[in-house]
Amino acid sequence: MNVRRWFPFMHWVPGYRRETALPDGLAALIVTLMLIPQSLAYALLAGLPPQAGLYASILPLIAYALFGSSRTLAVGPVAVISLMTAAALTPLFAPGTAEYQGAALLLALLSGLLLAGMAVLRLGFLASFLSHPVISGFITASALLIVLSQLRHLFGIPLQGSTLPELLPRLLILLPQLHMPTLILGVGSLALLWWAGAPFTELLRRHGCSVTWSRIMPALLLVLSIAVVGGLGLAQQGVAVVGEIPRGLPVPQLPEWDWMLARQLLPAALLISLVGFVESVSVGQSLAARRRERIDPDNELAGLGAANLAAAVAGGLPVTGGFSRSVVNFDAGARTPMAGVFSAVAMAVGVLFFTPWLRDLPQAVLAATIIVAVLKLVDLRSLRRTWRYSRQDGAAQLATLLGVLLVGVEAGVLLGMGLSLLLFLWRTSRPHMAVVGQLPGSEHFRNVERFEVVQSPKVLSLRVDESLYFPNARYLEERIIELVAQHPAIEHLVLMCSGVNLIDASALESVEMIVERLRTAGIQLHLSEVKGPVMDRLRRSEFLQHFGGRVFVSQFQALAELDPEVTRSAMADAGTVAFGPPSGGLSDEIRPSTKA
Amino acid sequence: MNVRRWFPFMHWVPGYRRETALPDGLAALIVTLMLIPQSLAYALLAGLPPQAGLYASILPLIAYALFGSSRTLAVGPVAVISLMTAAALTPLFAPGTAEYQGAALLLALLSGLLLAGMAVLRLGFLASFLSHPVISGFITASALLIVLSQLRHLFGIPLQGSTLPELLPRLLILLPQLHMPTLILGVGSLALLWWAGAPFTELLRRHGCSVTWSRIMPALLLVLSIAVVGGLGLAQQGVAVVGEIPRGLPVPQLPEWDWMLARQLLPAALLISLVGFVESVSVGQSLAARRRERIDPDNELAGLGAANLAAAVAGGLPVTGGFSRSVVNFDAGARTPMAGVFSAVAMAVGVLFFTPWLRDLPQAVLAATIIVAVLKLVDLRSLRRTWRYSRQDGAAQLATLLGVLLVGVEAGVLLGMGLSLLLFLWRTSRPHMAVVGQLPGSEHFRNVERFEVVQSPKVLSLRVDESLYFPNARYLEERIIELVAQHPAIEHLVLMCSGVNLIDASALESVEMIVERLRTAGIQLHLSEVKGPVMDRLRRSEFLQHFGGRVFVSQFQALAELDPEVTRSAMADAGTVAFGPPSGGLSDEIRPSTKA
Repeated sequence: MNVRRWFPFMHWVPGYRRETALPDGLAALIVTLMLIPQSLAYALLAGLPPQAGLYASILPLIAYALFGSSRTLAVGPVAVISLMTAAALTPLFAPGTAEYQGAALLLALLSGLLLAGMAVLRLGFLASFLSHPVISGFITASALLIVLSQLRHLFGIPLQGSTLPELLPRLLILLPQLHMPTLILGVGSLALLWWAGAPFTELLRRHGCSVTWSRIMPALLLVLSIAVVGGLGLAQQGVAVVGEIPRGLPVPQLPEWDWMLARQLLPAALLISLVGFVESVSVGQSLAARRRERIDPDNELAGLGAANLAAAVAGGLPVTGGFSRSVVNFDAGARTPMAGVFSAVAMAVGVLFFTPWLRDLPQAVLAATIIVAVLKLVDLRSLRRTWRYSRQDGAAQLATLLGVLLVGVEAGVLLGMGLSLLLFLWRTSRPHMAVVGQLPGSEHFRNVERFEVVQSPKVLSLRVDESLYFPNARYLEERIIELVAQHPAIEHLVLMCSGVNLIDASALESVEMIVERLRTAGIQLHLSEVKGPVMDRLRRSEFLQHFGGRVFVSQFQALAELDPEVTRSAMADAGTVAFGPPSGGLSDEIRPSTKA
Repeated sequence: MNVRRWFPFMHWVPGYRRETALPDGLAALIVTLMLIPQSLAYALLAGLPPQAGLYASILPLIAYALFGSSRTLAVGPVAVISLMTAAALTPLFAPGTAEYQGAALLLALLSGLLLAGMAVLRLGFLASFLSHPVISGFITASALLIVLSQLRHLFGIPLQGSTLPELLPRLLILLPQLHMPTLILGVGSLALLWWAGAPFTELLRRHGCSVTWSRIMPALLLVLSIAVVGGLGLAQQGVAVVGEIPRGLPVPQLPEWDWMLARQLLPAALLISLVGFVESVSVGQSLAARRRERIDPDNELAGLGAANLAAAVAGGLPVTGGFSRSVVNFDAGARTPMAGVFSAVAMAVGVLFFTPWLRDLPQAVLAATIIVAVLKLVDLRSLRRTWRYSRQDGAAQLATLLGVLLVGVEAGVLLGMGLSLLLFLWRTSRPHMAVVGQLPGSEHFRNVERFEVVQSPKVLSLRVDESLYFPNARYLEERIIELVAQHPAIEHLVLMCSGVNLIDASALESVEMIVERLRTAGIQLHLSEVKGPVMDRLRRSEFLQHFGGRVFVSQFQALAELDPEVTRSAMADAGTVAFGPPSGGLSDEIRPSTKA
């Protein structure tokens, strides 16, 4: 086993120089300033005490730096994972209790073990089963739920719940109780953060200043709001604040193991791991591509696994790579994972010395931070785009969106994944088939209903656009029998297998049955354009010896031998398509016929 | 709605003539003689009193004749379905109790409702998810379990259990208690039935007699054994007999409905319905094909649904089309479903007048009937054949076989179905891709590793042998980036889409990502041989406007325009493959290159 493969830091640590330390250090400072409010906010979102977020932003960063392969990914608590954590734990324990915190650590531990296990077993491909539409629907719905849940802090009302049907009616009932000073603080923060986004960035850009200044606005807002709340004594007037945070760092220790609870949390841990992995890898890949670097999915699994195990022993919560902080890290010039280590050190210093300053930090400001961050994730136009492209993908996206909003995070994602699979299977169970003919002047065969093609009266060419496997084996039999009944004059049926990527044992039996039936009708079956891997398999069966037909290398060759007259006349029309003048658009290349 | 569509009997009843009645009646007589011992035996196998089997062979036959589309299928209790019935009910109730019988009727009712529902909703395609290897593994394992369970009656020992680990050790313990007269009767029957099979049939054929005589040997054996047991008073010496069967027909009535029990039985009912449907349709189709008739799967669902509902109200058990009795019906010359009606009438007459004669029928003889019938179903060579053809299909078949033997019928089938799906998805998640080149003298492109082909130095042609959809979207990205890194000199990458039957929304995003990455490396992506349905979808997205490349109608056209030099020189070598002399075998058509 290659040791260096599992410890990517061995690639960059030996050559680490002082010149790289400077950009890494600067990036780390900016990321830390951004990470402090986010860590606090996402811990609160997960139903945990604020320090859990801070602890989750120290050891996990170091663990990821050791095992992860992305050079600029910044890990820590993120909004969606915190929402999933809360959704998994609130049905079991009351937020704020010791049991709830213990369960959060167990969840991080399970998630870490699952990710590490997937790394070792190379099961990263499991993440592919979260399709883009499902992820997109999930992210949008989660963002909406997060915004809704944060109205609790923004309005200063005791709003509880984790789905739309729980949150909306309660919000309407509780709205009259809103706390004015809290609302003013919250809305003021929202306005400031909104301004710090596009308008301020634009201003900075116009004056030639670095846009990173807009990135540390949330930290400045923190300082400002602490000063206002402390100065005016607003905490005594009912403005909810973060409160006392224990000073110093906790001693790392394994969370308490409880088999029963672990089994209950396993599905949530699996989903958190998959979602966290998919999100993290897509951020990591897009950043790596910008600098022509590569990340390795297996290393990412290992890095995120280590980060979650570290979060579990450090008293944190489930973590993953965050989009905004990674972009900030990248833009601020981070060169190596050492930036993450520096961030961790800066965060540790903050926790050791500056936590008393956070006592008067109003929760409404943190809520505003979250809302501004997640509103960017809401993308309803994507739903329309997906639906237009494919009803099936659109249905999966819509089901996920509604499932998450109405039933819950886990149920929604599972619904979307299940529906994606079912719709795919349903689709492949009745595959598209096309009777094809020769494009005049070329050796190419296309659908008779879409192109003006030449057909042979005695040879029927059928292209099946799907792998032949058990869900469609019987359907194939039925369709071919039907088709032959419609073409009584034919002597040969050539199955063009360019779209057949697999013939499984069930389909092989069906094809044998088809051969029998065609034979009784005086028709011989042939195959063409059978791909190498499919041919390899057929050679291991007795089919090729018994079926009586031939396997042609191309559909053209099949026709050239079975009905040479027709192909010759079709080729005589040479020069119109295959060798025609280069065409600029699609219209020339894909030329639908005028037939129905 | 077309009424005739749902009542296939309207096609043949109006034209029914006396000439057809004679062959139908003769066939019915032979089938009835065969059906009596089978009905009794399969009812006992299902853990039910013998009359349940007789009742299940009257009304259901008439119901099927009204709704089913096969002209010669003979329905009634069959071995595999009886085994499934016993497996579903024994964990809930003790065989022989009224609750057990009630549950069997409820199971038949549920099964009938499910089949009828599937007929109305046209869900017959669901049966395709039972792949051939799964069915084959299931049938073999079931047959072995049935043989093992029948040793109870053959040896006269109180053997109980429904899986191999339950049956085998108990058999060894109970073997010393075997009842000699029972064993002699049983083994004697086995020997006679074996002889009535191949040897006697051969004898008949050699002397020019009808082979149907061998089909009624079981009925003769019945008469003979009743005479022996009655004459020698063996029942008093401990030979288990069928005993008193109530005379007359029961009044049809709906079974008692119990929501809780119905929910418990639903999975078993679904599986029984699917397995029964698949078996019945495959028997029906192969018989119909012999006479150039057709059966309609939706009508078959309706027919079997009606038969099971009839079995439920008649005090029977779940039924389906049986293989051996349908073949006998066909061979005996049945022309229309009227043969089934005649069978039902003959059976009713038997139940009304002749049941007292069955009192002394020894159970060992029925066990011998079952064993001889199901031993024909054991096919272990199929496992080797499937395994050789495809490891994945072989694994599914083996898993089903072992699952049914070791864990149980339902668990085994579900395991097999789940494994089939998982292996398919796993396979499509890492699709086969081939770099292709032009076959000299043709416009056809094949894998560079299998054929001696011509490649362009600046155009890379890649064929992806799978639909592009979410499980493989990310894999595609990774593989293409790797591939491009191996070919630094290329300017164009043409994705040959002949094997791509679908590009879903996830894959579209991946392809867009690939276009971006290739662009930064100075490479333009093009597509070729995009199929109509895939093209229709792409036109509904913005991909075609933005991706900057072209969509070529064929791979040859792509090369002809992107690198005309190379295609011209490849075509100059004309005549060697495409227009070569007709070749008899495969060796000429699929010609592997000497390259690795």
